[in-house]
Amino acid sequence: MKVLAVDTGGTQTRIGLFHNGNLVSRTSFATTDLQALLDAAEELAPEGFDAAGVAFAGALDMRRGRILCAPNLTKWQGLELPPLLRDAWKRPVYMGNDASCAALGELTAGSRAEDFAYVTWSTGIGGGLVSGGRVLWGRTGMAAEVGHMVVQPLGPTCNCGKAGCLEALASGSGIRRITERKLGRPLSAEETTALAQAGEPIPEEIMREASIALGQGLAILSETLEPELFVLGGGITRSWAYLGPQVERALASMARTPPPIRLTGLGDEVGLYGAAALPTHWPDKWPPPAA
Amino acid sequence: MKVLAVDTGGTQTRIGLFHNGNLVSRTSFATTDLQALLDAAEELAPEGFDAAGVAFAGALDMRRGRILCAPNLTKWQGLELPPLLRDAWKRPVYMGNDASCAALGELTAGSRAEDFAYVTWSTGIGGGLVSGGRVLWGRTGMAAEVGHMVVQPLGPTCNCGKAGCLEALASGSGIRRITERKLGRPLSAEETTALAQAGEPIPEEIMREASIALGQGLAILSETLEPELFVLGGGITRSWAYLGPQVERALASMARTPPPIRLTGLGDEVGLYGAAALPTHWPDKWPPPAA
Repeated sequence: MKVLAVDTGGTQTRIGLFHNGNLVSRTSFATTDLQALLDAAEELAPEGFDAAGVAFAGALDMRRGRILCAPNLTKWQGLELPPLLRDAWKRPVYMGNDASCAALGELTAGSRAEDFAYVTWSTGIGGGLVSGGRVLWGRTGMAAEVGHMVVQPLGPTCNCGKAGCLEALASGSGIRRITERKLGRPLSAEETTALAQAGEPIPEEIMREASIALGQGLAILSETLEPELFVLGGGITRSWAYLGPQVERALASMARTPPPIRLTGLGDEVGLYGAAALPTHWPDKWPPPAA
Repeated sequence: MKVLAVDTGGTQTRIGLFHNGNLVSRTSFATTDLQALLDAAEELAPEGFDAAGVAFAGALDMRRGRILCAPNLTKWQGLELPPLLRDAWKRPVYMGNDASCAALGELTAGSRAEDFAYVTWSTGIGGGLVSGGRVLWGRTGMAAEVGHMVVQPLGPTCNCGKAGCLEALASGSGIRRITERKLGRPLSAEETTALAQAGEPIPEEIMREASIALGQGLAILSETLEPELFVLGGGITRSWAYLGPQVERALASMARTPPPIRLTGLGDEVGLYGAAALPTHWPDKWPPPAA
């Protein structure tokens, strides 16, 4: 079976052609509009494919194939992407949230563990949960919103409007707002980490608190899902040598039987592998998209 | 198929005989030792049964049928209960955590929802999670320990040794310790609620904070599992008319798409229904117990 996999991120779109689960060719380009995606697919797979899987960075109603909210891709908001692509490709198109697709990628092509949680530590904090060898999609496909667990009820306000979400405390966008407040200028997680590693006390404290909040989030997942493993991905994990021990210490203090944490071995292609597996791992409870 | 169901709680043991999923007879007695259970089973089902399911109030290794930790049933700790019962009954015996069994009871005989979380609000706080029509057991059967999610990192110490667990903030045993500290005498949740309803400010505050903590716990489950429903059971829910609105308000403020909360319609027999379903809902990933 030939599957066209698409991973539409806030800045980059990756597409890959898979033959029986193996990635045979790939390309990437700046995320702009539908036409750019159609052109890239035509170029990558001129001979066609049997089905397509799309990982999308946003809140989706997977049952209906509808993009509900996409803070970094606002002009895609409200779009029913799968039917539009099906009309162009004449093939069934499956769409899922990008972080849950990353978990599916880890399940089918990465760690292959039966029970694990995948967490993206990046501009936002996303997740994908696998229990008993199955991705937990939730009622409409919006499960695993681990960035929006309220971990400190009195904490800072999140983009979503709530207070004390993990994302407000530990994500790249949260760190940007925290540095603006505490240092007078907005810094990226990478910049803040560099200052922390150079011994600056306020950046040290900011990254320590972010690491503790992430550890608390993982500890909550440990108690509720009893995973055998955490798999982490996302840009901030590039500083894992410095941040990892702090996250692990927090996890160990807040979970009774914490599993090990590993970084994804699939790198930036983890979501692409998951998108490729969507057609064969579509949840039974929803009708498959029309061919 | 005839199944003997056993629900071994900290004080009471309930047993029931099920024919094809229907409860045909039942009894209950004070939880003492193995012999009392064998005697009661002999009396209830003199003609035998095909399999047995046991819901047990404690931390278990379900794969091995071993009771790891049972704070309210310390003399059962370390016991491999299923093989002992199998030797007496000559039938396969399946054992699971009582709160996860309650979720299984709701799945098979109660709400029958595909995606929901069951939470017991009682002396302790336990849970059972159902996603895509399946109970989430975790790696060894210890998933859904919702009482041990750290919801306030700076909160009071829990029985388990960690700080700020939901159970330390909102369970009956937690409320007993909080009232001791704030009122000078340990009160049950029922007594504290009665004082709160009578307008006493400190009990009002204690029960408000407990309700907010429970709402936060449910909100975390809402974001991570996207359930269509919460089902609550346990003694403290008898005061739901007073406490429910406070829990619901907290849930609504800490989750973006909070599902409705209902109280279990199976009452004290919810765990018994789940125990009866264990033999037919045993997770594929573990070998079934020997016959």
